[in-house]
Amino acid sequence: MRLFVGFAKKMRESGGESMEIRERLLKGDKRAAARLITMIENNEAEAVEILKDMYGHTGKAYVIGITGPPGAGKSTLTDKLVKHLRKQNKKIAIIAVDPTSPFTGGAILGDRVRMGDLNTDPGVFIRSMGARGRLGGLSEATRAAVKVLDVYGADYIFIETVGVGQSEIDIVKTCDTTLMVMVPGLGDDIQTIKAGIMEIGDVFAVNKADRDGARRTITEINMMLDFNGGNWRPPVIPAVAINNEGIDDILEGIKNHMDHMKETGEFNKRRIANCKFEIIDLVRQRLMNTLLDKSKREKRINELSGMVASREMDPYTAQETIFNDIK
Amino acid sequence: MRLFVGFAKKMRESGGESMEIRERLLKGDKRAAARLITMIENNEAEAVEILKDMYGHTGKAYVIGITGPPGAGKSTLTDKLVKHLRKQNKKIAIIAVDPTSPFTGGAILGDRVRMGDLNTDPGVFIRSMGARGRLGGLSEATRAAVKVLDVYGADYIFIETVGVGQSEIDIVKTCDTTLMVMVPGLGDDIQTIKAGIMEIGDVFAVNKADRDGARRTITEINMMLDFNGGNWRPPVIPAVAINNEGIDDILEGIKNHMDHMKETGEFNKRRIANCKFEIIDLVRQRLMNTLLDKSKREKRINELSGMVASREMDPYTAQETIFNDIK
Repeated sequence: MRLFVGFAKKMRESGGESMEIRERLLKGDKRAAARLITMIENNEAEAVEILKDMYGHTGKAYVIGITGPPGAGKSTLTDKLVKHLRKQNKKIAIIAVDPTSPFTGGAILGDRVRMGDLNTDPGVFIRSMGARGRLGGLSEATRAAVKVLDVYGADYIFIETVGVGQSEIDIVKTCDTTLMVMVPGLGDDIQTIKAGIMEIGDVFAVNKADRDGARRTITEINMMLDFNGGNWRPPVIPAVAINNEGIDDILEGIKNHMDHMKETGEFNKRRIANCKFEIIDLVRQRLMNTLLDKSKREKRINELSGMVASREMDPYTAQETIFNDIK
Repeated sequence: MRLFVGFAKKMRESGGESMEIRERLLKGDKRAAARLITMIENNEAEAVEILKDMYGHTGKAYVIGITGPPGAGKSTLTDKLVKHLRKQNKKIAIIAVDPTSPFTGGAILGDRVRMGDLNTDPGVFIRSMGARGRLGGLSEATRAAVKVLDVYGADYIFIETVGVGQSEIDIVKTCDTTLMVMVPGLGDDIQTIKAGIMEIGDVFAVNKADRDGARRTITEINMMLDFNGGNWRPPVIPAVAINNEGIDDILEGIKNHMDHMKETGEFNKRRIANCKFEIIDLVRQRLMNTLLDKSKREKRINELSGMVASREMDPYTAQETIFNDIK
């Protein structure tokens, strides 16, 4: 993550603010959480220092991923699930992640559908995160935000993503349970979506189940799940989120998965796997920063790009040239 | 790309087959193209050697990316565009890329909708590519396949992707012109999709334009494009692909963009930028292979992952530990 470019930067003289954020965050202060996530998004070196210090306070929140194709009604469904959990007085955080959007800070997803009661509920924290710039690091920033909201004291952290691409799959690797939201009428594309998601869905919801073809979609998903092994069989649950139908069933499905994970030791295994994924991702970003940070190397890459475009050199030889420079 | 792991492997003694593939490919042999793409997908070191040798023969094909949300009818639209170009006797290749699918070789996208005439047309080459394994490298494999089909003699190479995530955006960076296929009725999600795609769409099609809300979708896209600068204003073209409506207009839009690119020198600039992106991607993959290839390091990463999961160590410190090992 570009956060680590910060190691080379002069550390900001803001120890005072930093102490204050730590204390406020431990007390469950919403604005401290929001401020720290902004620091993460701005790649402030201090954010990493705070996260390091507070890492011992994390691991308590249960992290639920919500993903599925555009138009499946993920936002509405998330809102309804959250409202149900609020009745049990659970403290909730929602991170709405959009890898395709350059916007952050709630401008897009957060404000779009959540003008209503959730935004004014003191027990609900909502934040949108988008990709910024080429190097991305969105999954890292999301993981860092999860840590913040864990310290903040959220019982459940929902990570809602926009699509079903690789970045969404990466983001979902932060989660304890992943809810896959499908919808009838995806046509041909359901085939391809299904092929990719079978591994990552722990619970399936078929939203807008009052529409034509819902029965067929449910059957199709069940058929595909029949081919999968493993000792957890994901349930496929019909829902009409906008009418509050199926919400209890979905929460029960999530609860069952949670219990199963904890009983079988899968919970711990998954968390270790997620940590491994995070460490590798961090090292990858660090290597990329090392690669791209030196302006001299940037110049060299530009030269070689011109040569590759004009067919004076092939890209594989260009790669070897740069790799040998780095070593 | 994992291809480069091959450098450390014993080279396969298959010089004979390799020579034959080169010759057959230069003569436009379909099966030689298919075989070489399979070699790429299997990470055979020899594939890179062939691509290096033949790189001088590439750069002639015009590469068109087709992307958009699931359910937009991209496959149908691609097929219609291809049929129109076939009437002008153009040689066509279609690469259907699905980053979320573990399947390759035509099993999913290729066979699904293309049981008909395109598959039996000797002037059309169709291939599906999916992600395999964690390290992916799908955008690299796609770029390599584009080179193969360029040597094979395709006039136009269509790269069709399934979604609108980051992997799709990466793949689109292989293309000269990108057609973004939208559809009415995406609901809330159109907002977020639009925010991410404005930069990558050169031509916009609103497919299924006989549906309710098509007019509004077109207006919304146009409004967002009005905010964008640049000296190319992407057209927004209504279409009903299944009825062959709007296909000519879309081809004209693509042609106009192509002419504009060539007249303004943008074409060359974009190709250099794409080469830069490719080189950086190759170096990144190489670095990752170096990182993960050593079994000793894998063991160390596993140890640290356990410590991070149990909160004995934070992931940022784990990253530094491994980064210092590599240096």
